Amino acid sequence: MSERGLLIVISGPSGVGKGTVIAKLIERGAVLSVSATTRAPRPGEQDGVHYWFVSESRFSEMVKQDEFLEHAEYVGCSYGTPAAPVDELLDAGRDVILDIETRGAMQVRSRRPDAVMIFMIPPSMDELAGRLRGRGTESEQKIAERLAKAREELPLACGSYDYIVTNADVASAADDISGIIRAERLRAVRRTDAVDALIGR
Amino acid sequence: MSERGLLIVISGPSGVGKGTVIAKLIERGAVLSVSATTRAPRPGEQDGVHYWFVSESRFSEMVKQDEFLEHAEYVGCSYGTPAAPVDELLDAGRDVILDIETRGAMQVRSRRPDAVMIFMIPPSMDELAGRLRGRGTESEQKIAERLAKAREELPLACGSYDYIVTNADVASAADDISGIIRAERLRAVRRTDAVDALIGR
Repeated sequence: MSERGLLIVISGPSGVGKGTVIAKLIERGAVLSVSATTRAPRPGEQDGVHYWFVSESRFSEMVKQDEFLEHAEYVGCSYGTPAAPVDELLDAGRDVILDIETRGAMQVRSRRPDAVMIFMIPPSMDELAGRLRGRGTESEQKIAERLAKAREELPLACGSYDYIVTNADVASAADDISGIIRAERLRAVRRTDAVDALIGR
Repeated sequence: MSERGLLIVISGPSGVGKGTVIAKLIERGAVLSVSATTRAPRPGEQDGVHYWFVSESRFSEMVKQDEFLEHAEYVGCSYGTPAAPVDELLDAGRDVILDIETRGAMQVRSRRPDAVMIFMIPPSMDELAGRLRGRGTESEQKIAERLAKAREELPLACGSYDYIVTNADVASAADDISGIIRAERLRAVRRTDAVDALIGR
């Protein structure tokens, strides 16, 4: 039996660069969990790749059957992380990343206390503002809202996440998370099998 | 102010190769704590390098003044880790390694709950026996005793240490511990200052 993979939750303010860092981790063998959503696919989005596109009634049924690790509503549509595909990957020894907001993260933590909880922060609030502006897709008002939300979430992060990784540059943030993954695999609670094997139990 | 270093406790059965792995970590910038002892210096041993050589009465005084992170008696002599030099190094931002037995490690853990506790195991008991024999310094009876002690300590290690590192080869065990150090520095509990600085608190 291969060793079970790690469930890794990554949260952080909008604009912090989670996507780019996660892409690096995927290059190194981790897998990004695919969410289910009730919103319609956008051009180019593929079912099972970008999202699992499901009907409202199917989504409600999944909630009722407790099939989600976390779920939430956002601007009138539902989003959730189905547990079954995540568990299949973990059982196959793959590390699975969930890129989710803090509320969803807290749901995962209560369902899966062994999840590794990582919060990503920018090197400075100015840098975060700069990155949001750099996208060129959002109004100054929207940016101000996102910054206010970040300021609010940051102090909570210290108490609710296991690790805080600063994304000053992508390679170093990805190396930090790879280090966390390496270390977490060595946690005594995850190594009882190795010790039992050693002493022939 | 530089970030405070990590206090790292490394234990493991005799023959597991702690010394060689620790030497690699020292090359990478960690510092090994120097113990105090009441035993006489052996030829070539220097005060303050291999041990702090102290009198029985000085040692007793240090115990009374609560100056040790841990201390124990071994074949009629006393050994202990003085707290003051360790704290000076930690304050200067250095990671300090304590190479100590399980009983001493438990004393450190209760005095310093933030210590990072690492237990090193061999890839197999046969390999451990081979390494002990390879030293060529111990009788078969002594080796049998050490193996029996290892078997006894190993199950306890899972419950009392944070991490279990297999020393199959020195470079990879040292990389594992470097990964643990990197990850531990990113623990949310150690990063409240970074978050406060970010939001200007």
